[in-house]
Amino acid sequence: MGGIFRVTRRYRFSASHRLHCLEFSDAENREVYGKCNHPYGHGHDYVLEVSARGPADPGTGQAVDVRKLDRLVRRAVLDDFDHRNLNVEIPVFSKIVPTTENVALEISRRLSEGWAAEFPAGPALEKVRVHETKNNTVETFR
Amino acid sequence: MGGIFRVTRRYRFSASHRLHCLEFSDAENREVYGKCNHPYGHGHDYVLEVSARGPADPGTGQAVDVRKLDRLVRRAVLDDFDHRNLNVEIPVFSKIVPTTENVALEISRRLSEGWAAEFPAGPALEKVRVHETKNNTVETFR
Amino acid sequence: MGGIFRVTRRYRFSASHRLHCLEFSDAENREVYGKCNHPYGHGHDYVLEVSARGPADPGTGQAVDVRKLDRLVRRAVLDDFDHRNLNVEIPVFSKIVPTTENVALEISRRLSEGWAAEFPAGPALEKVRVHETKNNTVETFR
Amino acid sequence: MGGIFRVTRRYRFSASHRLHCLEFSDAENREVYGKCNHPYGHGHDYVLEVSARGPADPGTGQAVDVRKLDRLVRRAVLDDFDHRNLNVEIPVFSKIVPTTENVALEISRRLSEGWAAEFPAGPALEKVRVHETKNNTVETFR
Amino acid sequence: MGGIFRVTRRYRFSASHRLHCLEFSDAENREVYGKCNHPYGHGHDYVLEVSARGPADPGTGQAVDVRKLDRLVRRAVLDDFDHRNLNVEIPVFSKIVPTTENVALEISRRLSEGWAAEFPAGPALEKVRVHETKNNTVETFR
Amino acid sequence: MGGIFRVTRRYRFSASHRLHCLEFSDAENREVYGKCNHPYGHGHDYVLEVSARGPADPGTGQAVDVRKLDRLVRRAVLDDFDHRNLNVEIPVFSKIVPTTENVALEISRRLSEGWAAEFPAGPALEKVRVHETKNNTVETFR
Repeated sequence: MGGIFRVTRRYRFSASHRLHCLEFSDAENREVYGKCNHPYGHGHDYVLEVSARGPADPGTGQAVDVRKLDRLVRRAVLDDFDHRNLNVEIPVFSKIVPTTENVALEISRRLSEGWAAEFPAGPALEKVRVHETKNNTVETFR
Repeated sequence: MGGIFRVTRRYRFSASHRLHCLEFSDAENREVYGKCNHPYGHGHDYVLEVSARGPADPGTGQAVDVRKLDRLVRRAVLDDFDHRNLNVEIPVFSKIVPTTENVALEISRRLSEGWAAEFPAGPALEKVRVHETKNNTVETFR
Repeated sequence: MGGIFRVTRRYRFSASHRLHCLEFSDAENREVYGKCNHPYGHGHDYVLEVSARGPADPGTGQAVDVRKLDRLVRRAVLDDFDHRNLNVEIPVFSKIVPTTENVALEISRRLSEGWAAEFPAGPALEKVRVHETKNNTVETFR
Repeated sequence: MGGIFRVTRRYRFSASHRLHCLEFSDAENREVYGKCNHPYGHGHDYVLEVSARGPADPGTGQAVDVRKLDRLVRRAVLDDFDHRNLNVEIPVFSKIVPTTENVALEISRRLSEGWAAEFPAGPALEKVRVHETKNNTVETFR
Repeated sequence: MGGIFRVTRRYRFSASHRLHCLEFSDAENREVYGKCNHPYGHGHDYVLEVSARGPADPGTGQAVDVRKLDRLVRRAVLDDFDHRNLNVEIPVFSKIVPTTENVALEISRRLSEGWAAEFPAGPALEKVRVHETKNNTVETFR
Repeated sequence: MGGIFRVTRRYRFSASHRLHCLEFSDAENREVYGKCNHPYGHGHDYVLEVSARGPADPGTGQAVDVRKLDRLVRRAVLDDFDHRNLNVEIPVFSKIVPTTENVALEISRRLSEGWAAEFPAGPALEKVRVHETKNNTVETFR
């Protein structure tokens, strides 16, 4: 038996953020981001899905060593993002706006950075999906 | 930082419909559609997911102006479909059967029609997904 | 070991309805029921939860014979309500408006009617809960 | 037909908060609130369920005028709480800690205050339930 | 401000079980338990909700010290039940059938046993709710 | 009107399993599979999603005859897997470990085997997705 698998693990973190672009005027910020621009921030229970793709190991029958994946996600993302203020406590978001797109991209960047060390023989990091709310989802691909 | 994103927004509408093909006999309709052919119709709380794909705007950090997308979906779809009888009140469904496939296709057609005016510089409309119930989902691609 | 249990079973049915009171003018109906008054009806995927209360049978370890409960709910409710137009096909709703309250009450009445025959020695029918949508729920008590 | 109903409406708001008690030392705050005490706050997609209890109006078949309830909840709660920092923007939470218990109590207090004006003839406000996350829920009763 | 709260925490455990009563014949067991009597067992992702009731502590603003509750549930229930075969590995279920009723009762008994030591000054353990599947729920009360 | 559709149907089965590789030592098995290696097995409420892809039939407006699909899934998968011990009662899992990957692959193999007889003129079996729990999902592609 053979086959290629996409394995997806689901994580959660609760964080606050404010959408505010330093290069825009206050009026432009309100126009672009609406209530997400309120000055003191708000928050979400983010859901993060990380997908890896590859064949199953013939011995373990698993395409991903989920203990390694969980550890990488915890160290590279959850330890920094969970119960934090994204604008203040995640350095990149002092310069770029923590939209769901940028949150997904930063998570993808952090996972890519540590991926080869954890998974030198595969699988590949395929997709990062961030649900800001049930009605608003962003995926980014590597 | 760069990247291509798929942004998905989720909407809901409650509608009634009846699956009945005018070219089939009554017996054939019952055979093909089962209880969905019951003469007085039934209904669902449809969930609609609209996915667009493109790069993020360097200024706003967003791949889709969600206010525009929400407005387009509301005008082109929800205002006509929500709390309506699809067979009677959506013209195309007097001629074709409002299966989930045809509902998804009609929604996709309506969104495509208005897309270029709202999003002349992108992103692209990538996918329309309609959940008729939790157990029955149809996706159509552009 | 002893104890009193509430056992809840969950069912689903898809139906269409229209909220329209014959004693009101058309304007009053639109005022009271809003888009639920649209003339050709709309529909929902109703979720029905039936709760019974009683002690566990010392032999089976069950407070409710769920095969009996499922059969009663199917015969008294689902066979008549699923994939139907409530206003047209459920006699009581030609006279009273099929609001979630009245739907719950009618279901409760039908279950009460058949309860003693199925469960002469208990448990008691305690509660009927109807979710019209995720955001709109009605419970009725016996 | 008669009966007493519990009608529950479900709302959502996204907010940030920090659990920090001014009367505790920093060490005590970290001990009691753990990561919820992180200095720059975090956030949640709160789910709010408001339950009212009463008989159905014989004319409308409804136990609660949901347009009135939605309006009261929006004005008394959602307009102030949604996309806000609870500690900074809701006055009571400058003095008391915005735990889920206190959030539920403040919502209950605000709804009680406006209830009689909206519902002079009933139904009664029965329960406020706040889900901070899927795993953490608080109910308060009037 | 005052008030009495019901605080509910949600936990999960995955376990296998078989419904089989030693005092019944094989035919009776198949008749009573249907496919739940299959000889080699099956399994579920159980959801456990534990509800406590009491006033909020004026200092912390919390009605339940959730760290204590989580620790009690973990030690008294999850450590023994999660990823286990209930019939074989939980002693009481060698004598009584692990129906959802009996699972809820055993969990309630274990929590009651440790409750006073963890919560000498309150709150009270009010309710244990076990969802065997989304469609099958049992609550037991103390 | 035309178009290509992905139609997804969702099914559920409750099963028990144990992750244990005969070629590993006991210590290796505990290291690799953690609590999933517990000797007497545990269980899950698996969710199975089967996706087919093709054009809609011009007559029925459906891309998949869902009665045929439901029948195939029931006969080839659910009748054997539901309320069963995968290691003991599904022959292939006496030789290979019933990880989510291998469960998805075996389901895919069984559906592929019967597909041509049920759907000689299309649609194609595109994807099998198995959710072992809410946080652990595997997809396999044909």
